[in-house]
Amino acid sequence: MPRAPILTPRADDFPRWYQDVVAKAELADNGPVRGTMVIRPYGYAIWERIQQGLDARIKAAGAQNVYFPLMIPESYVHREAEHVEGFSPELAVVTHGGGRKLEEPAVLRPSSETVIAGYFAKWVQSYRDLPLLVNQWANVVRWELRPRLFLRTTEFLWQEGHTVHESEQDARRYALRILDEVYRDFMVEVLAVPVLMGRKTERERFAGATTTWTCEAMMSDGKALQMGTSHELGQNFSRAFGIEFQSETGESVHGWQTSWGASTRLVGGLVMAHGDDDGLRLPPRLAPIQVVVVLVRDENGTGPAAERLTSELASAGHRVELDAATDTSYGRRVTDWELKGVPVRIEIGPRDLAAGTVSLIRRDNGYRADIALDRVVVSVNAALEEAQAAMLADAEAQREQRTADVSSVAEAIEATKVGFARLSWGRLGTDGEAELAAAGVSVRCLLAADGGLPRPGGSAHDLAVVGRAY
Amino acid sequence: MPRAPILTPRADDFPRWYQDVVAKAELADNGPVRGTMVIRPYGYAIWERIQQGLDARIKAAGAQNVYFPLMIPESYVHREAEHVEGFSPELAVVTHGGGRKLEEPAVLRPSSETVIAGYFAKWVQSYRDLPLLVNQWANVVRWELRPRLFLRTTEFLWQEGHTVHESEQDARRYALRILDEVYRDFMVEVLAVPVLMGRKTERERFAGATTTWTCEAMMSDGKALQMGTSHELGQNFSRAFGIEFQSETGESVHGWQTSWGASTRLVGGLVMAHGDDDGLRLPPRLAPIQVVVVLVRDENGTGPAAERLTSELASAGHRVELDAATDTSYGRRVTDWELKGVPVRIEIGPRDLAAGTVSLIRRDNGYRADIALDRVVVSVNAALEEAQAAMLADAEAQREQRTADVSSVAEAIEATKVGFARLSWGRLGTDGEAELAAAGVSVRCLLAADGGLPRPGGSAHDLAVVGRAY
Repeated sequence: MPRAPILTPRADDFPRWYQDVVAKAELADNGPVRGTMVIRPYGYAIWERIQQGLDARIKAAGAQNVYFPLMIPESYVHREAEHVEGFSPELAVVTHGGGRKLEEPAVLRPSSETVIAGYFAKWVQSYRDLPLLVNQWANVVRWELRPRLFLRTTEFLWQEGHTVHESEQDARRYALRILDEVYRDFMVEVLAVPVLMGRKTERERFAGATTTWTCEAMMSDGKALQMGTSHELGQNFSRAFGIEFQSETGESVHGWQTSWGASTRLVGGLVMAHGDDDGLRLPPRLAPIQVVVVLVRDENGTGPAAERLTSELASAGHRVELDAATDTSYGRRVTDWELKGVPVRIEIGPRDLAAGTVSLIRRDNGYRADIALDRVVVSVNAALEEAQAAMLADAEAQREQRTADVSSVAEAIEATKVGFARLSWGRLGTDGEAELAAAGVSVRCLLAADGGLPRPGGSAHDLAVVGRAY
Repeated sequence: MPRAPILTPRADDFPRWYQDVVAKAELADNGPVRGTMVIRPYGYAIWERIQQGLDARIKAAGAQNVYFPLMIPESYVHREAEHVEGFSPELAVVTHGGGRKLEEPAVLRPSSETVIAGYFAKWVQSYRDLPLLVNQWANVVRWELRPRLFLRTTEFLWQEGHTVHESEQDARRYALRILDEVYRDFMVEVLAVPVLMGRKTERERFAGATTTWTCEAMMSDGKALQMGTSHELGQNFSRAFGIEFQSETGESVHGWQTSWGASTRLVGGLVMAHGDDDGLRLPPRLAPIQVVVVLVRDENGTGPAAERLTSELASAGHRVELDAATDTSYGRRVTDWELKGVPVRIEIGPRDLAAGTVSLIRRDNGYRADIALDRVVVSVNAALEEAQAAMLADAEAQREQRTADVSSVAEAIEATKVGFARLSWGRLGTDGEAELAAAGVSVRCLLAADGGLPRPGGSAHDLAVVGRAY
């Protein structure tokens, strides 16, 4: 019995499908100031899981959390030339406070390099103070002309790490450690989203950085999403703000810095990487609700049995919810749990129970089986593990399938209608990059010839991965 | 051998002592925009522990986390008359965004009642949608003319809960549940700060509320700090924003609301409630570092022994840190750990180790004992439990000792030079309250005659607890 679709099918209109999922799974709503966003409980629960996963990895990499102010004196932002050029068009400006016009207007942080650098200059005196590794969870504001919930909003939530090191090598090593051990690891292992780790071209790098490293993913429509970036700032900000330390040999040296961030955009990435025409599909390690126990009808002891199963699954360490709302139709409830992407559904009805079984349904592939009551926990464990692995494998296979090796700009433009194109960066060059840009295609990242990280300075053999991006 | 004090003694100048502790324990620094604050790693670690404790209790009370935008259209704030009157002088205003003057200026949220109410109006249709219980962790901005780090800053961090209920009774019950099960419980059980739960007078209640309930604590200088408040908003915002639902009997009814918050001010409260002339004293359940193992000198196997002890204590579930920085003097390290208020210090030196013992020192009362190596974990467990209980008992005893029963305004003004005064609210009245205010004394809260919560409407027997407040 086919259900009437409650979402626009992806093949018909992918952006509209995305909007539908975000609205109907109750992830977020538009805020009253244009471009801002209200994150609803289910959307925020997903973000909290992302925060926990990243925060644990950030702390394991040695950074400590801090909090710097939202408002930055306008003059600070002007001290680093490229930085101000990059951010000026996006700034929000506070001109009045406490009923009076401010002597100096304050901007709302679009990123905190400039406000943090001033404190680093105070805190860093000696090589013994290094490395200095901090991170903050904060809201940032970048005025957005074409907003899209989670993907591009005027205000968004993120973490931003900021560090100072003794040498360029130390800074690079740490920027790459964050890229690999925090971002790639979390995205692959928890979000089940394969990412390419590479370097941005000069055109695409962060305003004020010397090198930007990135994790790039392919969404299920073949377009690219930048999932997290880690920047080497060189001595750009440390010269502008006077971050100097005395080296072991007594010289005065400007510190080498990094900064790195990942944001609520990851929620959008999760929707677009895994969602299907029935809604979200959440990887089990990320899902705020991993298992829902659906009481089909409350009769012949099904209610107590459902409660028992729910607490058994909770005791086994799963995030589990009981749906005993039998006054709402079964079909509507199932549709809603599918929309919300809960990885495993256990259904328990009078007939099942009489036969000593329940139904187990996997959201990722629709697999359905009857399970003996005393095998539920073991079967759920297995289903969650299999779903996690299958979702990653699917996403990897789809990316491979939709990535074409090409040898000209024209071929790249054609190939990026459905996915990524890969071609020699030596051949493409900045002129080719500009041609691609005119067609709405960008270089997502540069890889070494073997697909690994390229050398910071680049090589004639580097590959450019190009695509259309969110 | 007395050490030179590194802090201004409390008896000499309490406010300066507070500033010294905040600076030297590296909790926070002033931000570049007047009144704002940089929260440093140790201060933020304390805040994270506060967040975790409150967040778990908020979730246990059934509220779900969400996120609403920072920027609120100016007109929204004007829809509830008392609310705008209360907040207007403190607002920060964004007039420009994305390089252009905004059609309507936006204020930075001083609190989110007005932006949230508009969404509640959309989300609440039927009594089945109620209670609607949400909470957010966010930064808020209230322009501050006399800022003091943590206690009163132009930008601060907090949680704000917002709820809608079917009836006044339901709303009241929930406001009081939050007051008791979230705020009082956390403050007493974790912060070891005894609090009075009472009702605010009309003069002191939140702008837009019908009733404000509060947790009030006494700092170690005898002054009061409002630690958290829970408001009944009645139907004030639901009428202004149209939050209406269909009741079970089919009528259209305006929702009854609550809101409640606690902020980074609690970090300041923790400093002032427990600190002494050597610095912070942190209650063990709150402390980011509960035990520090200090390697006195690295010789004769003390280093490996200290490492072993550290991992034993970590395995026992304690938050423990090893201080093996033997290139810094022992005295300076001890001073620093005392400044940071770490509850238990284990010192291990060559002589101790030869005797098969270590020293255990409690920060709260200076207790020091030699402990056999195989008794360290058991002794630390006991010391942490005892310190937690002793700190609460001390704070309770000091509050009792510094609270005087008085019967006139003149006596109250005298008594509040060193603590709280308690007197009949029926006798004091709003005229007496105004007289007190002229002398810098405020009614902190009203209690029932037995010291419990007063009835919302009040009674002739209610007691007023008055004091000087931060």
